[in-house]
Amino acid sequence: MIKFSINKSFFLQALNATKRAISSKNAIPVLSTIKIEVQNSNITLTGSNGQISIENTIPTSNENAGLLITSPGAVLLEANFFINIVSSLPDVTLDFEEIEHHQIVLTSGKSEITLKGKDVDLYPRLQEMATENPLVIETKLLKSIITETAFAASLQESRPILTGVHMVLSDHKDFKAVATDSHRMSQRKLTLDNTSNDFNVVIPSKSLREFSAVFTDDIETVEVFFSDSQMLFRSDYISFYTRLLEGNYPDTDRLLTNSFETEVTFNTGALRSAMERAHLISNATQNGTVKLEITNNSVSAHVNSPEVGKVNEELDIIDQSGSDLTISFNPTYLIEALKALKSETVVIRFISPVRPFTLMPGDDAENFIQLITPVRTN
Amino acid sequence: MIKFSINKSFFLQALNATKRAISSKNAIPVLSTIKIEVQNSNITLTGSNGQISIENTIPTSNENAGLLITSPGAVLLEANFFINIVSSLPDVTLDFEEIEHHQIVLTSGKSEITLKGKDVDLYPRLQEMATENPLVIETKLLKSIITETAFAASLQESRPILTGVHMVLSDHKDFKAVATDSHRMSQRKLTLDNTSNDFNVVIPSKSLREFSAVFTDDIETVEVFFSDSQMLFRSDYISFYTRLLEGNYPDTDRLLTNSFETEVTFNTGALRSAMERAHLISNATQNGTVKLEITNNSVSAHVNSPEVGKVNEELDIIDQSGSDLTISFNPTYLIEALKALKSETVVIRFISPVRPFTLMPGDDAENFIQLITPVRTN
Repeated sequence: MIKFSINKSFFLQALNATKRAISSKNAIPVLSTIKIEVQNSNITLTGSNGQISIENTIPTSNENAGLLITSPGAVLLEANFFINIVSSLPDVTLDFEEIEHHQIVLTSGKSEITLKGKDVDLYPRLQEMATENPLVIETKLLKSIITETAFAASLQESRPILTGVHMVLSDHKDFKAVATDSHRMSQRKLTLDNTSNDFNVVIPSKSLREFSAVFTDDIETVEVFFSDSQMLFRSDYISFYTRLLEGNYPDTDRLLTNSFETEVTFNTGALRSAMERAHLISNATQNGTVKLEITNNSVSAHVNSPEVGKVNEELDIIDQSGSDLTISFNPTYLIEALKALKSETVVIRFISPVRPFTLMPGDDAENFIQLITPVRTN
Repeated sequence: MIKFSINKSFFLQALNATKRAISSKNAIPVLSTIKIEVQNSNITLTGSNGQISIENTIPTSNENAGLLITSPGAVLLEANFFINIVSSLPDVTLDFEEIEHHQIVLTSGKSEITLKGKDVDLYPRLQEMATENPLVIETKLLKSIITETAFAASLQESRPILTGVHMVLSDHKDFKAVATDSHRMSQRKLTLDNTSNDFNVVIPSKSLREFSAVFTDDIETVEVFFSDSQMLFRSDYISFYTRLLEGNYPDTDRLLTNSFETEVTFNTGALRSAMERAHLISNATQNGTVKLEITNNSVSAHVNSPEVGKVNEELDIIDQSGSDLTISFNPTYLIEALKALKSETVVIRFISPVRPFTLMPGDDAENFIQLITPVRTN
């Protein structure tokens, strides 16, 4: 039966990272628990919601953990409840001891708390994965690719494949990530230093957001493994599994064209503020849009929501070329697109009032492109 | 028709303070608006939810306001919407101009936003109050009295009078504030430096909490005025009106007695942490309680929730005298009582397992007393 002692803060941090995979309202009740497996030289914490699973390993060799294992074993504990209890303990260390019938006694300072656990055999078996030939990538880079693309994925389950981010590696080094909800699209390209096996997968955007929260910036690199149905992100102590989406991702390359009629360069922050003002007014009308008027000496934005009011604003521009154009669109799409840009300037290219327009960062137009579909107005 | 210009941040701060009285879901639709009245030398912002009303005055003489009034007038604007718009404006100043049909044009930088307003005659008339012989009190002191008592008022409308704080001034200087929800009670006494007319009122605890949020710590003193049905807190720029509760407040003095059998002095923070742990477990059972066991050489806390587990904890004590005693109570009441105490130590006096026990701060036992009713267990 389990017996160990550990530093409370360190344990709490590992529990909270693992909890990100655990939903308290799961259709499978046992998935609201956290699995605690104690081996001779480490503890593994496991959480899962059926889509994502996280395994967090705490080795006795990690000095910050202050981990002393007296006796191994395994138990399931209600995740939220257990974490709240650990967080409330008075001392810097805690003793964790299993007594009869999966009961756990936590001792810390003069406080002794007894909790009911469950038999570890009740926990579902998570899929195993072959871990060969990983793609090794900087955590920071992978997280920035996720920030640049995942927001553009669909939130609606009507076309499940669009709720994912399409990630493709070809020729062992040409990487592409793309997401679209059919109204807008965001695509990031990259040439990798470390070559790996080619892959072509669609990853739920929700899983990618959880990955970004779990893999903190102190984790320098991450190993990525693929199988037909799932994917594993692994660092020294954390294994993060996610299921993949099944089905064919639409061909997004055909949406991109090099031709354009009008090009305007904006300051990213100034354009975003102007669109946020426009959105406050357009938002009062269902499917409210902002109208951009580009003439040869000015660019202006206009919103008219008869119930609440209107906005007229002249926009500061950095550069401009091509034909005059008037185009209407949902300002939310442009706001989200600009949020995803780290560049100080943004280049926007228009073809016609009824064709999608493209956004590229002023400093890296080759590798990051976004596309927004306009709204036809009369 | 109105025309003025003002510093955006200053205006926003005044709007947000006024908004605290405004509920966007009011049964009287016009109360979701903010009233803006522009006179020759100041602007008054008014918000009300029918219970609380706030008037905020911005004078041209305040240099931080940067207020320049060209033409007076009055208009109503949807409060939330208007404040969001002001907050989004690009420049440090804004111009506010009324055009035809209560329409307002806001200009800031190159942005021009037109909003629909309403006729000021639609706004209800707020009650007037005689402003003579105020009670003048330090804002900080009044806010600390509110923190010490308002939490103990009832949240249930079954006995409306108990949702208020009973405030009484007798002999022109003896002040008492008391609140009870019939399970616990908190009473603060004070001898005032500035004498005033006697009063005996019951103020909704919700109004007092809003008062504490609106009157920031930079406002040194506040004038308090009473009428039969309402009350006014006034500083240089802010007038805060609240309705009073009608009815007789129960006689709480009879609950207090000087006799006791057992007295224990605790460190406030340590006792609170222990009760928070106890609450995590007791909370899993409906009406869960914590049992305190006081013997001649130790004090311990025990919770047993058969579904989830139990807590046993020896409590650190500073001092102890009197008979042995075992008493059960809802730990939430003790946690909230301890939160209201600024003193490092707390003295708790017990009479018997079925009689209320009292809490007093270690450093000011005379003037601040709290009372908690135990739960009978078998």
